[in-house]
Amino acid sequence: MQFLSCNLRLVCKKITHNICKHNIIYKQLLRKFTVTARLTDFNKWGTKKKDREVKIQILEDMSDPNIEEILSPFRDSVKEQGDYVRKLKFDGASELDIKKAVVELKLRKKLLEEKELSFLETITFDRARMEDLLKRRFFYDQSFAIYGGISGQFDLGPMGCALKTNLLNTWRNFFILEEQMLEVDCSILTPEPVLEASGHVERFADLMVKDVKTGECFRLDHLIKSHLEKMISDKKINENTKAECKNIIIRLDGMTKDEMATVLSKFNIKSPITGNDLTEPIEFNLMFGTQIGPSGLVKGFLRPETAQGIFVNFKRLLAFNQDKLPFAAAQIGNAFRNEISPRSGLLRVREFTMAEIEYFCDPNNKSHPKFETVKDLNVLLHSACNQMDGKSAQHMTLGDAVLSKLIANETLGYFMGRIYLFLIKVGIDPKKLRFRQHMGNEMAHYACDCWDAECLTSYGWIECVGCADRSAYDLTQHTKATGVKLVAEKKLPAPKTVDVCEIVSNKVIIGKMFKKDSKLVQDALAALTENNINAIETEINENGETELRLSNDSTVKITKNMIEIKRYQKTVHVEEIIPSVIEPSFGIGRIMYAIFEHNFKAREGDEKRTYFSLPPVVAPLKCSVLPLSSNNEFVPFVKQLSQNLTKIDVSHKVDDSSGSIGRRYARTDEIAIPFGITIDFDTLKTPHTATLRERDSMGQVRINLDQIPEVVKNLSNGKLTWLEIEEKYPKFEQQETTEA
Amino acid sequence: MQFLSCNLRLVCKKITHNICKHNIIYKQLLRKFTVTARLTDFNKWGTKKKDREVKIQILEDMSDPNIEEILSPFRDSVKEQGDYVRKLKFDGASELDIKKAVVELKLRKKLLEEKELSFLETITFDRARMEDLLKRRFFYDQSFAIYGGISGQFDLGPMGCALKTNLLNTWRNFFILEEQMLEVDCSILTPEPVLEASGHVERFADLMVKDVKTGECFRLDHLIKSHLEKMISDKKINENTKAECKNIIIRLDGMTKDEMATVLSKFNIKSPITGNDLTEPIEFNLMFGTQIGPSGLVKGFLRPETAQGIFVNFKRLLAFNQDKLPFAAAQIGNAFRNEISPRSGLLRVREFTMAEIEYFCDPNNKSHPKFETVKDLNVLLHSACNQMDGKSAQHMTLGDAVLSKLIANETLGYFMGRIYLFLIKVGIDPKKLRFRQHMGNEMAHYACDCWDAECLTSYGWIECVGCADRSAYDLTQHTKATGVKLVAEKKLPAPKTVDVCEIVSNKVIIGKMFKKDSKLVQDALAALTENNINAIETEINENGETELRLSNDSTVKITKNMIEIKRYQKTVHVEEIIPSVIEPSFGIGRIMYAIFEHNFKAREGDEKRTYFSLPPVVAPLKCSVLPLSSNNEFVPFVKQLSQNLTKIDVSHKVDDSSGSIGRRYARTDEIAIPFGITIDFDTLKTPHTATLRERDSMGQVRINLDQIPEVVKNLSNGKLTWLEIEEKYPKFEQQETTEA
Repeated sequence: MQFLSCNLRLVCKKITHNICKHNIIYKQLLRKFTVTARLTDFNKWGTKKKDREVKIQILEDMSDPNIEEILSPFRDSVKEQGDYVRKLKFDGASELDIKKAVVELKLRKKLLEEKELSFLETITFDRARMEDLLKRRFFYDQSFAIYGGISGQFDLGPMGCALKTNLLNTWRNFFILEEQMLEVDCSILTPEPVLEASGHVERFADLMVKDVKTGECFRLDHLIKSHLEKMISDKKINENTKAECKNIIIRLDGMTKDEMATVLSKFNIKSPITGNDLTEPIEFNLMFGTQIGPSGLVKGFLRPETAQGIFVNFKRLLAFNQDKLPFAAAQIGNAFRNEISPRSGLLRVREFTMAEIEYFCDPNNKSHPKFETVKDLNVLLHSACNQMDGKSAQHMTLGDAVLSKLIANETLGYFMGRIYLFLIKVGIDPKKLRFRQHMGNEMAHYACDCWDAECLTSYGWIECVGCADRSAYDLTQHTKATGVKLVAEKKLPAPKTVDVCEIVSNKVIIGKMFKKDSKLVQDALAALTENNINAIETEINENGETELRLSNDSTVKITKNMIEIKRYQKTVHVEEIIPSVIEPSFGIGRIMYAIFEHNFKAREGDEKRTYFSLPPVVAPLKCSVLPLSSNNEFVPFVKQLSQNLTKIDVSHKVDDSSGSIGRRYARTDEIAIPFGITIDFDTLKTPHTATLRERDSMGQVRINLDQIPEVVKNLSNGKLTWLEIEEKYPKFEQQETTEA
Repeated sequence: MQFLSCNLRLVCKKITHNICKHNIIYKQLLRKFTVTARLTDFNKWGTKKKDREVKIQILEDMSDPNIEEILSPFRDSVKEQGDYVRKLKFDGASELDIKKAVVELKLRKKLLEEKELSFLETITFDRARMEDLLKRRFFYDQSFAIYGGISGQFDLGPMGCALKTNLLNTWRNFFILEEQMLEVDCSILTPEPVLEASGHVERFADLMVKDVKTGECFRLDHLIKSHLEKMISDKKINENTKAECKNIIIRLDGMTKDEMATVLSKFNIKSPITGNDLTEPIEFNLMFGTQIGPSGLVKGFLRPETAQGIFVNFKRLLAFNQDKLPFAAAQIGNAFRNEISPRSGLLRVREFTMAEIEYFCDPNNKSHPKFETVKDLNVLLHSACNQMDGKSAQHMTLGDAVLSKLIANETLGYFMGRIYLFLIKVGIDPKKLRFRQHMGNEMAHYACDCWDAECLTSYGWIECVGCADRSAYDLTQHTKATGVKLVAEKKLPAPKTVDVCEIVSNKVIIGKMFKKDSKLVQDALAALTENNINAIETEINENGETELRLSNDSTVKITKNMIEIKRYQKTVHVEEIIPSVIEPSFGIGRIMYAIFEHNFKAREGDEKRTYFSLPPVVAPLKCSVLPLSSNNEFVPFVKQLSQNLTKIDVSHKVDDSSGSIGRRYARTDEIAIPFGITIDFDTLKTPHTATLRERDSMGQVRINLDQIPEVVKNLSNGKLTWLEIEEKYPKFEQQETTEA
């Protein structure tokens, strides 16, 4: 996920472009599912309740031929420009020309999406209500709020923290255990040279401007956008200028530093807070810097991704795997980005948890032994090609996608399948999940194919998992920087005879002649290629001596008696290869946020009674234990049940507060507890039984008390379904009439 | 664990004092267990194999009356000084006098310990060999080694990472699940004001000096010690000076900045590297600083402990707990300390994982409902009193210790019991575990009692868990800093009638008169105490007006028509209290290191064959699957077994490499795999069976293949013991003769 930020930025820009402060509708479309939002304030995670409304539109069928007729010219327009971009690339046109053409392509795609959107019906998603619940029940909230808070930082409360723990444990079982991956836990503080080699020191930056007097900073694209939006809504501004503003906002994504600087001066943009002048655009590196050790001399950064920790340990991991390829390493951990202006709640933050896998394989063999197990999965793919042709995303099996080379190789396809299955397992709605391929121009330069798993939320399609083929980029970079060869040995199909030409130096003579430099001389001799050796041989034979340049840039004279040139043949069984890396990279906070949105529900007929229908495997707590009333006779049963649940590691919450059972169910629904056990007067009789209730269906059955812990455990880990329980045990018919 | 560092420092100083480069023996003693070490280089975690040797001495019985006779005067000497310290305290002597007396006390304690040590027998612990294994099988190793590495930073490899994950999951089940604690996950980047309130900005520092020319930094106490040690081993130095040097080394612990500066100048100490002059001692804050956001104006630090994240969320957590006390919150996460000179491997590092619990309770009721469950535990307690009296630590039940007020209260005692049980569960040797009470002078000023769980290792007794009663310190500090009351409401035993005296301000008149300042005026009026109100009333009655000071330090005139003074009685049912905090704080890396040492074993009669006898619950992998040979017929059985193990989440490693079974067992023993399954020719016959082998006893039984996964799972989670397996299944008699 090396340059995820850039990708995220793209995605998020796409969103923010289309959000205005004054109820302008923003639109995102994928086949049948689209999203609209009306926000009056989307900038801060509320310490106050927000006056805002977010809508998601979903249309189940858009096959009306009349609609297609209207859309057709828009589709053609996108395709025309897509073809033009292709032609430019084919003709080897300049990067600038291609970039301009792509910006135009994006504009046309946007117009198409907006037109598509206009045919869609609307259902409402109330983000403010969901955020209110998340905050009220302390799933998460702003960090250091009593100190005024810091934007882009969040603390997970008990429920958010338990969800995260369950999510990560599920991830560990699903990926690491299943594939016997090598998990590592590397340092967060990273010395500068490591991040120089990876390219982060040079390239991991956003543009900003500063107030020349107060020093206040503004992210440049945000600043331009909000200034132009203000102009658009200003009655005194003429329509031509407004159209120009709109056009710039749409093109902002692809603009260079200079283009933005031109906009800044053309519209005479000042600090929106003080009205002061602004500096020229500055590239601001997004890494948090610090000093390691007391001297102030060792510069370090908080890592911006976890991947580099794996790459620098490649040799150790290869050795641990008994020098065999392929193998996968994985890491779960925090990474840090000093965002200029964090926003969109959990989606754009300054510290976050990632789970990354680096799968090291033979660059010439990216087949995967387990691809068979996912090849029939039918997933929604939004290929680069479709994006350029103005077509919608389409369903396809992973097998077909790999066969048709749409997905570059089996290993990439295998991990996309595993990502899909994992996301569904933890509660992502498959109807709101797609894989979008990076277009040529947005892909990092080292990658040969990249697909983002995107989830549809009220913020639009957001990247939650990246899955890239990084080729040999990282290992090559670290090898260059350190001189340590990060390679694997590959057994040749058959032994091979190779010609060897080498210089053997006479250590005694060289030692006498060059004294303390003799090591340098020997190193320089050992580093000579066959061509060098041939040239030296010729020169020595002709002149009796030759000049040799040392690593300290001095030169020395080498005479015939110092060296001997040997030529012979040797049988080799292995060759050195730099492995390719396939990288699935998960943004845990983003996945959590998408899970919240996809599982936020209201009871039919009682819209105020909201809850989260989280799958039991990730639900923060697995069950509640509710005594019907404060009757003392219930106490020993509650205590014993709680102990029995603890004994088999079933997390639970005893709620013996005074509310009615209905009200307490509603409270436990809010924190997504999937199963509830009620101790009532029937429990006191033998055989002791209790009611077990399921959250989503609100169905209830009656079960023997001593069986309940094991039943809940098996329901929680997916070994039993609620349907099976309802078939096996007598239904409990009492309605939740006392609720609300 | 707010000032753990200081405590750690104390413990580690104690160790390092007694280690010399040149085979000087260092000594630590607790009752019957003591430790000696001979090191030629203990400073770096080896990139090369180290020439060093560490010995731990254990004597099972020291009750010989002759020995006691010899020790008696030493004990008396310690007691005499301990009594003197007590007297000074009782008499309210100056802090300096007490400090001096304590230094003398420590010196006498050391002499006693050395004498005790001289009677002990020696067994050898080979730390170099253990470290070699840890490195070779990549449990952990230095971070960024291919870039030259950074001291004080380590990466956990697959085995270290899996051990840590298992340790943390066990911790979560043992503490959070068992006690239904509220787990949180808070930000690492912390703004300065939070750490100013907690005291870290001012006090979290070590002393260092710099080379005036190169700027190189040295930790002051380390520098003085190594200089004086060099003098002691110098033949040209006279015996008197040597004695003085020895004396200073022993006293170094308790020295102030000025005293150390005097030593520095008296012995004319220069940079040991360049010989240059050194600066005066500088206090170096151990927190990593950084800037949050792009402006450079928001100063932040990487948190030095996780506890503060919990305190600043106190109000939310209390609300989550439905406003009831007591409750416990917990957090697992990384913390950072910019050590001046990290050393001792995993024990003194720059980033580390902590697991902290903050138990909030009524300051007047520190009883604990579950204390009963631990009160009979017999643990080794080294009380402050015993430390002052020159006595050894002694075994005592927690019940007796709380009853006799040795441990301040039940809650503290309960957590000490839970800490004890947890540490034993994860592999700490109970014979090498003690609780040492902080003496008055080393306890943080806010704490009223503090006990460290210390583990005996080749580095001496090291603090692994702190357990402190922090009283109301932190909540009070954050309340002071923010004005946000961090309190709980406590129901009064009976409703209480109180007199209320308050000022009701006339908002209309005040608004008209003071315009934009009217809010300030109202706030100032509302903040008045009863005494203030009485004074104001008098003055207004006499003069018709009075002066009021506002928060911006201006004053305004208040006239009679602006206010009304009301006096009435009110019935209250609750009172506000600032909860007390009991804090068990776990250093995960240190616990891991102690587990490694306590479980490092060699096979009897084959000392080269070393292994870790980790308890299955924390062992990185639960079992190995070993086909007897590369025979193709074994392949489907191995594959099926591996799938069945994965299905029930049993982590395992298939080793189908070519070594003999014995050699492969040895390899899996090294990485602490507790159970091994061998597929052999008998497996091919029906009923299909395999060999199951236990690591520590090397015992083997024969079990049906389809039963094995469940059996291993139950062995791993402690539901079955190996003894039960050996009783139930037929023994497999083949010896591991092919080994080595």
